Amino acid sequence: MTNTNATFGLPRGMRDIEPLEMARKLWVEETITKSIRGFGFSFVEPSPLENMETLVAKSGEGVRNEIYGFKDKADREIGLRFDLTVGLARMVAGKMDWAKPIKLAAISNMWRYDEPQFGRYRCFYQWDVEVFGVAGVEADAEVISAGVGALESLGLKEFEVRINSRELVEGLLEEAGVSADKTSSAMRAIDKLAKVGKAKVLSELKAAGVSEKAGSKVLELCGTRGNLKDTVKLVKVKGSNGKNEKIASGTAKLEKLAELLGAYGCLDRCVLDLSVVRGIDYYTGIVYEIYDTASPELGAIAGGGRFDGLVKVFNGGDVPATGIAGGIERLMLSLEKAKAYPRILEAAEVVVVPVNEKMYNEALKIAAKIREAGISCDIDLLKRNLSKQVSGAAKKGARFAFIVGERELKEKKVNVRNLETGKEELKGLDEAVKYVKGN
Amino acid sequence: MTNTNATFGLPRGMRDIEPLEMARKLWVEETITKSIRGFGFSFVEPSPLENMETLVAKSGEGVRNEIYGFKDKADREIGLRFDLTVGLARMVAGKMDWAKPIKLAAISNMWRYDEPQFGRYRCFYQWDVEVFGVAGVEADAEVISAGVGALESLGLKEFEVRINSRELVEGLLEEAGVSADKTSSAMRAIDKLAKVGKAKVLSELKAAGVSEKAGSKVLELCGTRGNLKDTVKLVKVKGSNGKNEKIASGTAKLEKLAELLGAYGCLDRCVLDLSVVRGIDYYTGIVYEIYDTASPELGAIAGGGRFDGLVKVFNGGDVPATGIAGGIERLMLSLEKAKAYPRILEAAEVVVVPVNEKMYNEALKIAAKIREAGISCDIDLLKRNLSKQVSGAAKKGARFAFIVGERELKEKKVNVRNLETGKEELKGLDEAVKYVKGN
Repeated sequence: MTNTNATFGLPRGMRDIEPLEMARKLWVEETITKSIRGFGFSFVEPSPLENMETLVAKSGEGVRNEIYGFKDKADREIGLRFDLTVGLARMVAGKMDWAKPIKLAAISNMWRYDEPQFGRYRCFYQWDVEVFGVAGVEADAEVISAGVGALESLGLKEFEVRINSRELVEGLLEEAGVSADKTSSAMRAIDKLAKVGKAKVLSELKAAGVSEKAGSKVLELCGTRGNLKDTVKLVKVKGSNGKNEKIASGTAKLEKLAELLGAYGCLDRCVLDLSVVRGIDYYTGIVYEIYDTASPELGAIAGGGRFDGLVKVFNGGDVPATGIAGGIERLMLSLEKAKAYPRILEAAEVVVVPVNEKMYNEALKIAAKIREAGISCDIDLLKRNLSKQVSGAAKKGARFAFIVGERELKEKKVNVRNLETGKEELKGLDEAVKYVKGN
Repeated sequence: MTNTNATFGLPRGMRDIEPLEMARKLWVEETITKSIRGFGFSFVEPSPLENMETLVAKSGEGVRNEIYGFKDKADREIGLRFDLTVGLARMVAGKMDWAKPIKLAAISNMWRYDEPQFGRYRCFYQWDVEVFGVAGVEADAEVISAGVGALESLGLKEFEVRINSRELVEGLLEEAGVSADKTSSAMRAIDKLAKVGKAKVLSELKAAGVSEKAGSKVLELCGTRGNLKDTVKLVKVKGSNGKNEKIASGTAKLEKLAELLGAYGCLDRCVLDLSVVRGIDYYTGIVYEIYDTASPELGAIAGGGRFDGLVKVFNGGDVPATGIAGGIERLMLSLEKAKAYPRILEAAEVVVVPVNEKMYNEALKIAAKIREAGISCDIDLLKRNLSKQVSGAAKKGARFAFIVGERELKEKKVNVRNLETGKEELKGLDEAVKYVKGN
């Protein structure tokens, strides 16, 4: 993918997106856009550049070091956005006159200045769906369903939504004997469980001042995982049987959420997973991550949660919010592994092939008619010989060659060659167009 | 459009794209993409960041000062791209094994660090169509036709393509007595004609060492304008009657181009305009600009030409190239003035309205079915009263409310209110969906 030309290479971590990948990416984005619009979300594009103070306001240390920042020509500290959520929240904070609920969506690129790895670049894409102005779990259910709907619309079948509540986890930590001032560090430790394993998390909890006994209990709790509805009940009983306020409130919301997700028709995909706490500091309340269960090694293909405090950070008043986002590149890996891509053309479906130079202009006229009928159509601009025209088009993925010679022209026909089967047949243009559409 | 929040404002020249504009922009981009694909172009996305040396290699001074450049954290000189052509040419230069002709297209954002003006931002969007590897005018005809096709697909009716040949202009300058070393400055002066007027161009020509007599003759020539086919003939005769090589070659290519554009079906839109020479230094040969003839004050809505030397600059060997690009924002102004936009929904088409909280989950189930039928559908996540739900949805542009009460539910019907006419009717869900699709 990278440009190997030494003199005019690309900046570190950058890449070009080439035809096949781009065709797939456009299909993914078009499909997701249509699905998300189905839920009544309005697409927007927040500014790709932000003042550094906006980006660091509530993102937390982990992200701060990865911001692709620079000084502009006027010596101002600027950064390329690292996600869409911050920009959307900052945008809403500046539009307090907009009627709520505000349902926004975006698909665009973002940037992280970290060490490039195989398949991981400094500029990448995400889809993002957010509801502003709704404190109730109705909004969480809506964004989770919109996320599930988007993935289903792509033909992805094997995936699950792992849901949790930071409020519930806080309550459980309390009950396990972790003092309030250590909750934050404990959460950060838990967030790493899948990546670093139990032993490492235990030692990190210990370093944060959590006793070994409490730490073990926390880890045991984090192992709790099962279908959303039943497991919430179980945790409620096991937790403190209703005596801890945070546990009571957290589980009540999760129960309500399960009921709503049932009405949306996506409860079957949802599990409670107490180890899901999300790494970015702006999250509060309910959080969730979506995993491809056929390719769990990819990590979360989407994730999100409540960020009730973020709009206020940008001087926008008290606007509760919840949202979900997913990486396009990772999703595309998932779709490839699942063989979920439909037939996607990199170039034209039909090539019009003049048998000699004299036929070129006539072939152009035929090409124009084919395009009018809604079929993509190429012609060899180098005017090479017939066999080179056909083989060149086949390499680019064309499915049919419409060969135009003097005899065909006189009969107002084209010689249709199916490039997959090699079969050739003389057809009138209307008939040929129908044939392409039907095959 | 700009964020008025002082503390968390946007960097200078930046903006958010809000729902209505974004909905229109997405429609424009989807429509153009489909049209350009019809010609067999493959979409790609060149890297948004380039090393500064790539950007300045052949762009010329005018552009150089406007590059949005900065030093990255490793102190490297980096720039955000100022167009798509440079990135595409650099990309092709790194892919000399790709079979030619290479037909690439892109729609994306780009950056200029200049003084922001009303409606003009430091980050903006363009569509771009390029053919690499074809020296003949067949490629110029193809990209011009693809550009015309894209604009026509949007419903734009009144526009014309102003075509010229830098080779021809060079020949005419020779004949007017302008020496070869002054050709470049003379071209730059001519390029400003529409903006600064005759007197200013004359004085600029004089300052460049062009005699007053020659200057006047040049300006007279630049006034030449008329339908492509006839005017080329006229210029050939008036120019030197075939004795000047550049004039002979330039007009021969334009005549061939006119013939091809006729076959593509877009010759009627094409005029020869000797004042069109394009400002960027990488252009050679045939150049063109498209103007909205109903709103000429907008300036060119698209432009392009040959840039046969650019791939070689990036160490890519001799790859002739030609391409056309147009600004999305300016095009959107053009479409608005022409009232060319179809009905574009900012949010959902239908809102499902539960008459009370008890009906909410049932309404969710109905909403899911409506979406399955391919209709976008919203529900009030704040669970407000019926009249607020309906008025809120109407404000967002919903066209129909499907009201769900206990009686309707029992009868397996919804009360369909047409929000434009106010008419209400009880319908089964399938019937209601058909009604929406038919209206």
